[in-house]
Amino acid sequence: MDIAIPLYDGFTALDAIGPYEVLSRLPGARVTWLAGEPGPVRTDNGMLGVEVDARLEDLPQPQVLVVPGGFGNRALLDDERILGWLRTAHASSTWTTSVCTGALLLGAAGILEGLRATTHWLELETLKRFGATPVEERVVVEGKVVTAAGVSAGIDMALWLGARIAGDSWAKATQLAIEYDPQPPFDSGSTTKAAPDLVARMRSARRAADA
Amino acid sequence: MDIAIPLYDGFTALDAIGPYEVLSRLPGARVTWLAGEPGPVRTDNGMLGVEVDARLEDLPQPQVLVVPGGFGNRALLDDERILGWLRTAHASSTWTTSVCTGALLLGAAGILEGLRATTHWLELETLKRFGATPVEERVVVEGKVVTAAGVSAGIDMALWLGARIAGDSWAKATQLAIEYDPQPPFDSGSTTKAAPDLVARMRSARRAADA
Repeated sequence: MDIAIPLYDGFTALDAIGPYEVLSRLPGARVTWLAGEPGPVRTDNGMLGVEVDARLEDLPQPQVLVVPGGFGNRALLDDERILGWLRTAHASSTWTTSVCTGALLLGAAGILEGLRATTHWLELETLKRFGATPVEERVVVEGKVVTAAGVSAGIDMALWLGARIAGDSWAKATQLAIEYDPQPPFDSGSTTKAAPDLVARMRSARRAADA
Repeated sequence: MDIAIPLYDGFTALDAIGPYEVLSRLPGARVTWLAGEPGPVRTDNGMLGVEVDARLEDLPQPQVLVVPGGFGNRALLDDERILGWLRTAHASSTWTTSVCTGALLLGAAGILEGLRATTHWLELETLKRFGATPVEERVVVEGKVVTAAGVSAGIDMALWLGARIAGDSWAKATQLAIEYDPQPPFDSGSTTKAAPDLVARMRSARRAADA
């Protein structure tokens, strides 16, 4: 089973690596990292380089597509090379998924038109531009299109998807293998749980960045 | 603040990327990926290559040390180059941390002698070889030595550590930024929560691998 993860400069590492860590353990899984050109691609903060193995066009028909987010994709929302590849891959995929603002790329490719979808909480409204209905849920499933919330949500999404592909027993064994028994020291991971003034401050910083 | 993450062929990606995603957001953080030689290092399943920026010796005194696990480190438990580097780095570090079987490398370097420590649940007993007392907890703190349980536990560890370094407000904002509001679809992430027969099967497979 071919799992394609398209990367670009400025992606967020955990968006991609969370699902990779789970889905690469599926029986027969082959994960391929794609970009415009093979070679290292750097993350949003520039502090990490990931090796890309192949050009987008080298794998036009993966069974599973995982699109990570990151500030770098803002420059790609009208890039026909990646959007065209997404449309082609989606046409024959079994599952088309995104994590965080990876959903904006799916949206720009027209894949979220008329669907409920999620993304990083700070970008939910942006989904409307693409004809999607934003939903603040951890994982949103619409047929074969699965969108996950911000960054760390890709781990939950991948366990859900792995269960659909290989069964609940596989997913439970994988959860135990990666010891995914989360115990964050704070309870500040969503807009409904974090302090309202923190949420407001981050929303305001987000608007300022756009202005 | 220099954060060093030593890598080696056969490391587990999420062990390293979980803490990286959190700690790279610390004010003034500079993450450096180290190995024997610069260049790409491959993960345990070979499906991902991460760029290493520098030789171990290029950064002998990081303030924070994060040692990821992975099957590849079994070959390094008597490798004096990495063990010597770990001892030197630990001598002046502010925090010396490990995720998953990264603890075995700390142990082999003599850093866990007489300390309580944790690691992947399947390797807890191995810690005794290094004079450590194994503890099945998510994050174990002994002075400046912090060990985390398997794979995904590095995210929780890094939020705890980030709070110590930059304050609770910083950690809560970072938790919200990475939307870390875990909602795994199953509750099978630890030996006390997973089905007993699954735990037994995995323990048995682990013993068979050793035989």
